[in-house]
This record gives sequence, structure tokens and C-alpha cells, in this order.
Amino acid sequence: MPITNKNNTDYHQLRALLRTLQNTTMQKPSIPQGTRDFSPAEVRKRQYILGTLRTIFELYGFQPLETPSMEYLTTLTGKYGEEGDRLIFKILNNGLHEKNEAGKAKLNEEWNTLLSKPYSTPAVTERALRYDLTIPFARYVVMHQNDLAFPFRRYQMQPVWRADRPQKGRYREFWQCDADVVGSVSLINEAELLCIYQGAFQQLLLPVCIKINSRKLLAALSELCGMPEKMMDITIALDKLDKIGWVGVANELKERGIAEEGIWQIERVINVTGNNEEKLAAYTDIMQHSPSGIAGINEISKTLAYYQSLASAEWQGQIMVDISLARGLNYYTGVIVEVVCTHPKVKMGSIGGGGRYDDLTGLFGLKGLSGVGVSFGIDRIYDVIEELNLFPEQLATGSVAMLVNFGGDNELYALQLLRQLRTAGIAAELFPDSVKFDKQMKYANKRGFAYVLLPGDEEREKGLISMKNYATGEQKMVSIDDCVTQLK
Amino acid sequence: MPITNKNNTDYHQLRALLRTLQNTTMQKPSIPQGTRDFSPAEVRKRQYILGTLRTIFELYGFQPLETPSMEYLTTLTGKYGEEGDRLIFKILNNGLHEKNEAGKAKLNEEWNTLLSKPYSTPAVTERALRYDLTIPFARYVVMHQNDLAFPFRRYQMQPVWRADRPQKGRYREFWQCDADVVGSVSLINEAELLCIYQGAFQQLLLPVCIKINSRKLLAALSELCGMPEKMMDITIALDKLDKIGWVGVANELKERGIAEEGIWQIERVINVTGNNEEKLAAYTDIMQHSPSGIAGINEISKTLAYYQSLASAEWQGQIMVDISLARGLNYYTGVIVEVVCTHPKVKMGSIGGGGRYDDLTGLFGLKGLSGVGVSFGIDRIYDVIEELNLFPEQLATGSVAMLVNFGGDNELYALQLLRQLRTAGIAAELFPDSVKFDKQMKYANKRGFAYVLLPGDEEREKGLISMKNYATGEQKMVSIDDCVTQLK
Repeated sequence: MPITNKNNTDYHQLRALLRTLQNTTMQKPSIPQGTRDFSPAEVRKRQYILGTLRTIFELYGFQPLETPSMEYLTTLTGKYGEEGDRLIFKILNNGLHEKNEAGKAKLNEEWNTLLSKPYSTPAVTERALRYDLTIPFARYVVMHQNDLAFPFRRYQMQPVWRADRPQKGRYREFWQCDADVVGSVSLINEAELLCIYQGAFQQLLLPVCIKINSRKLLAALSELCGMPEKMMDITIALDKLDKIGWVGVANELKERGIAEEGIWQIERVINVTGNNEEKLAAYTDIMQHSPSGIAGINEISKTLAYYQSLASAEWQGQIMVDISLARGLNYYTGVIVEVVCTHPKVKMGSIGGGGRYDDLTGLFGLKGLSGVGVSFGIDRIYDVIEELNLFPEQLATGSVAMLVNFGGDNELYALQLLRQLRTAGIAAELFPDSVKFDKQMKYANKRGFAYVLLPGDEEREKGLISMKNYATGEQKMVSIDDCVTQLK
Repeated sequence: MPITNKNNTDYHQLRALLRTLQNTTMQKPSIPQGTRDFSPAEVRKRQYILGTLRTIFELYGFQPLETPSMEYLTTLTGKYGEEGDRLIFKILNNGLHEKNEAGKAKLNEEWNTLLSKPYSTPAVTERALRYDLTIPFARYVVMHQNDLAFPFRRYQMQPVWRADRPQKGRYREFWQCDADVVGSVSLINEAELLCIYQGAFQQLLLPVCIKINSRKLLAALSELCGMPEKMMDITIALDKLDKIGWVGVANELKERGIAEEGIWQIERVINVTGNNEEKLAAYTDIMQHSPSGIAGINEISKTLAYYQSLASAEWQGQIMVDISLARGLNYYTGVIVEVVCTHPKVKMGSIGGGGRYDDLTGLFGLKGLSGVGVSFGIDRIYDVIEELNLFPEQLATGSVAMLVNFGGDNELYALQLLRQLRTAGIAAELFPDSVKFDKQMKYANKRGFAYVLLPGDEEREKGLISMKNYATGEQKMVSIDDCVTQLK
């Protein structure tokens, strides 16, 4: 029936009805861009990584800390640069519509501010989602400075949120994993963190190289050029050595105003080859007149010596002094490290990094507390382990075996068997409904159990159980005890 | 110098300076109301609870799921009632100040809506923080219905956020822990969930009573009164039996319009005593003409029979049929359960609960999927275990032993010993700085290690180690092997 304007009432009624229908039409559910659901297999694999790290941290006397997902905006803003401020997720204050006249006037005022720049709006939004784990850690240490035993060693594994444009490998909700020591200047801490890296990647079966440098050596390079004020320029240029080679770096140094003589000095240092001892000896020779150079070399040597005493000898990986290692963040002041996976199949940047910083807690009024920390790139580590197929197989399925449900007395027999398996610590399940065999096997197929157990009439009467090995297809009838032993 | 209006320029400059000073004055850091930092000991205790539950869930073939902290507002609104909508934390969209003219006009329009009611504002806010684990689970199942193997058993342990007024035991960020099965109507699922409760609380050493009822019995009570439409009224009144006694409930039933004869019928049912078999037999007698009564009794009997075959016989706790158990949520349709701690010292409501619901995923367009689930009240369970002092002792400190740092060669000796301890799996730490003995012992005191190890000159020369037992004060010099054995 065509709709005309002739009968206006009908027309409007119909329009209203259509609108209602549209509103109640089921939306196809989805999740926000840059966020992820983690399927059972993915959660188990992540737990495997986090559990491995947790065990190592605890073994090294690091203590777990968890901070709230929300912090006051005032705690976060101004800590991550202008770009960072822009990417903080802010939470709308609740009950805005319940405010009185004066409250709404204030809200409207702030709303106008908000449309011109993204902060200073406590009436509209005073809380935000955690942007990293470092600032909340500093905030925690300052708040609890009188209760904490220093040096305070903490690890923290929690999600953080950034309103970055999502792309492959970059998410708006992702996990960070940090281990830090604050309140100690001893290089034993640096050595312990190297051991933690070594132990963690050894257990995760990942071949890695840990690069080590000191910010003081980068300072020494600028002194060597006679341009100590150019340290950041030199650092930024050197950071690209891997990507653009020495010729590219030399050009960039020139563009950044380093004189020929200075560039030649840097080239001399970069060209030093050999093992760590040989490199450090050559640097000592070149930098003998630079106090920061000597300090940096001593830092690295001492860290490596401590590491030798502390580390397991069996490790296949490598620690490599690399004077071109820069690490972006400005707040590092001493030893810096970075971890790269050395497997030839893996094309991935660093999977971890860290270093020593001074005065992080100074941001919140507690001065003079030195710290050193490392972080693990959980998402990247996950991708590398997946690529190299190094996750333990069992993580994919969970349960080892499924019992087919043949109903009636067989169902009760199956339940008793299930109890025995679980008492022995074997993860197993019974198909809960006694539906057609095919339907049950379809489920088993999808889940991918190692074994399917068949408690039918014959098995029940004999007090035995048939086991079907899913990989080989082999099926045999065994005693309950044998079944338990085999599944264990 | 008093400030006058005489020299206007100076005055304004001074005001500006003061404002700058105020802005840069260090704020005392704090965290938002209703959120918590978890100290190392607290994280370990929570991990102990979550780890225990995780192990049980996996043993029963339940699979882990994790969903994003943020969901689209459209996924969440309208699912938790009007009060729930009010308490959802909404996230401000990013880059509002970067919008063009048209964008800002739209924003201003929505802003005005936002000040009159708290939703329908996708330009200002389109994402919100997870409010519970049930709706994200339903959303996940619908999105992945073609990949999932049904019945799908999942557990999920994640924080949720609610803008509730904070008070003792009520937080704005808190953890939920749910286990559900969807896609199976078998009562074996109900029995498995009872076993999970039983196993979890047995491992956590908590004495509990699990109350069981069926929504169908509550329907039968209303039929018994001849007022099937009054089921919710009867449920609400009965739910208060613990608090206000039968006289109070009878009064409320009267106020809610139940006739004398009906109240008498209900009293007759409530007064039934005895063990579960006796109660169910008496109910069968009373409700023989009510189809939903008979269905409810069968549901409970069959669940208990399955449970008997499946459960460990050693458990000290109790499962009790309780016809007054109601559970607030409307969506339950079959068996319902609730867990209470029975230790006489504990005054706490339920520490867990759940039941069967039909058609949860219908909200997102997938009809006819029955489900049953239970949840664990993590914060309450934590409080009860703490009150009864049932957390394992080691959780408080982490490391078992601290090595005192006597510097120089002794430091290297200590590092080698530390390596041996850790290789043997013993969590230990060396004080990283060779500062005064008193300062090191002050740290050890605060941390509360079981042992302090003293690798001094004599110990190093003899290749031995002195162990000081912190509880007894006893100190002795032993071989490294003995030390490792004793700490293990």
C-alpha cells in the first residue's frame, strides 16, 4: 500500500512505527577499534608468557604491584609530552545531567575549553585511563614512601590504554610488563635485570641478543666532537645506524651541525670491532680524556662482571656492547639495554628494553631516588613465539580428554570415571548431553582433544574404558588405572 | 611589600607569577575514590585466590576468555536497568578540539542532550568501561557463534567498573569471576558447577554451605496460592526470611496482596524440615498438582544425583535445599544456587551465586541458547580468608632469604651463592648496596624474610655460609648444600 499524505494521521503513525522498528532492530555486535577479545587459546598462551615472567621476577625478589586502571588526570597530564596528553583516554564524570544551575554553568564553561584544547576540565572529566606503568609506579612510591622498604623492587603486568590510530601490531588496549628497582645506585641491580632477561628468554626458548650501552658514552661522543650540547642530535642520528648505515648517519650528523672532525671521531668509535672486552679497551683508549666516557665504560664493565658471577653459564644467547644503542626516552641517565630476537626467521624490532634513570619520583615531590628498570614487550614476544611455533602444544585445547556421553547408566559410569581423572589432576570433560554420537564427535573435533574416551555398555559391564588416540586414530580398551596413567 | 593598585603593571605581573607558582606547586598525589592500589602482599594473596580458581576451572574443562575493558556504549546501555545505565563509566571521545565547524555543531547539540539525560551521545562518547562480565560474554558468543564449539564453557576473571558511591567493601573498580556453560540443557552442568564450588572452597580451606533452589519452585508457590502472577512479589518477600523472620515475611506477603489462604500454603512449605531427601519428598506431596513444582523438584533431585556421582566424598561442607533462596536477578529460569561461609566468626552475605538462564544471547540476536553459570565474589572471599587468617604465610614476603652485602670479594661470593639458590628454585635476594649492616637489617626487618644469610670474610674463606633464622634468632654456619636443602 503506497503511503500518501492524504491520510495524515495514518502516515504519522506508520512513520513512528517504522522508527520504533529501526531502533529495536538488532545491531550486529562488535568491539571498539584497537581492542581485542582474547580467545581461550590466546588467553592460555598469554598466561604462559606472563606466568613465566612472574616466576622469574619472584625468584629474583621482585614484588608484584597493581595500580588502578583510572588515575586522576592531574597525575597523568604533562608527563608524556604534548602528543601523549592528546592520546590519554579521559573518563566522563558521572551524573552531569543531575547538576544544579551553577554546576551546569561551570560545565558549559569547561565544555567550551574542551573544544579548544584537550585538558584542564575537572568538572567534565577528572579521571583517565592508565597510559603506562611508570608514572603510576612513581605515584605509588611517593604515596607510600614511609611504608616501603627501600630498595623497592617491583614488577607490574597490567593493561594500558592509548588513543593511538590502530594499525597492525598497535592497539588501544595493550599489556605492559615492567620490573624496576628504586632507591639503589648499585650496578648489581643492572646485572640482576640482565639475568632476568636471560632467564626469561631462555625459559621461553627465544634466542636473543641483549645490547648494552651507557648514556654516559653517548655524552662522551659529543664531548669527543667538542660539542657536548649536541648529545641528543648525535643520539638521534646514531639510533638509525641499523636502518640507514654509516653513510646515512654521517649525512644526518652533518645536517645536524656536527663538524667534519667530529664526524670522523664518531666514525672511529663506531668502527671499533671485537668482543666486549676488546671494544671497551678500545673505547678507553679513545675516550681517556673524557670523564663521562671513563664513567660509562666503568659502568658497563662492572655490570658485566657482576653479571658473570650471577648468571647461569649454560645460556646460548649473547650480551653485546653496542655504542650506537640510544633508546628514545630522555629520562635515562646511565646503563641502557635492549633485547632483539636473533632467530633468522624473525624480523622484529626490540622485544624489551630499559635502563637507569634518576629522579623519576621527583615529578611527585620525592627527590633523589635513583632507579633502574626493564620492560618486556608482551605483544611482540607473543607474536615471535607464535611465529617460531614455540608455545607448548597443550595450551591450545585445555582438557586432555573428552568422555562421550552414552546416557542412562553409562552417563553415571562416565561421571565416576571423570571424578577419578580429575582427582588425579587430569583436566577432562564429559559431553553434558546424551545426544547423537556424531554431534559429540563434531564438538571433540573442533576442540582438538588428545584423547576421546568411550564409556559404553561393554566398558561399563567390564569396568574398563576405551581410549581413542585422536592423532593416530588408534583405539583400545584398558583398565581405569591404565587410562589414568596414560593421560598423566 | 604590600600590594596596591597604584602600580597596575607590577600588580598584574605579581598575580601572574603567583598563579604560575600555584600551578607548579607539587600536588600531593592520590588515587580516585573507590579505586585501590594493591600492595605486593595483596597482589600475591589475590593471585593465590585467582590461581586456585583457575586451576579448578581448567580441571573441569572450562576455557579462559578475556574481553576488552572498553565496549561500545550501545552494547552496554539498556542491559542493566535505568540505575545501571546511570552507573556506567563513559569514555570521552578523543580529539574533540580537532573537529571542524560541522563536527563542533554536532558536539554542542549532543552536549546539551548529555546535560538532560545520560546517553545517546556517540559524538561525545561512544565507548564505556565494562560493567560486568555477562554482557561481554553474550556479545562474544554471538560474534563468534560460527567458530565456537558448543556447549561452550568459559571462565573469565577481570575487573569491572561502576560509578557507585564508594563505601566499605564497595569499589568503583572491582574483580568479577564467572564460569558459564552455554548451549546445553543437561543438569550435569549444574552438578559440575556445584563441584567447582565445592572444590574451590575446599582448596581455599573455607567451610561453606551451598544453598540450592529452583525458580520453578518459586513459581509453584505462587500457583499454590492461586496467584501465579504474584511470583515476583512472593520471591521478593521470601528473600527476606533470613533478616525479618516468618512473621515479617507474612506481613509483607499480606501487603503485597496475597490472601490468608495463600500465606498459609507458603508457611506450610517453609516449615518443612529435614535433610534434602525429606524436604524434596514433602514438597512433592504438597505440590503434586503443580507441573512447575514437579519440574523444579525433579531438577533439584537430578542435579543432586549427578553431583553425588561426580563429587569428592571427603568434603566437609554441605549442599542444602532452601526453598526461600530467591537471588535477585530476573533472568534466572531454573536451578539457582548461593554460597555462604559457615564459619561462626564470619558475618558475611553470600560469597558466590548463580543459576540457569534462558536466552541471554537473545539480546544480541542469537535466540534459544540456554546457559547456566556461577560467580565467585573475589573481594568478599579475600576478606573472609584474611579474617580467618587462612592465607599461606609465604605470600606476605615473597623471597625466603636475604643475603647481607659485605662488599668487595664478599659481594662476589654472595652473588655466586645467590645464583646457586635461584638455580635450586629458591626466591632470594642480595642487598644491592654494601651499606652499613644496620641499614641492611632495617630493610630485612621491614620485608620479614624467614632467613638472613651472612656471607662475610670467614664464611667466604671457609666456603660456608651463616644462616640466621629470623623467628628464633638462632644463627649457625653451614655448608652451601645444607643451606640450599634447608631453604627448600
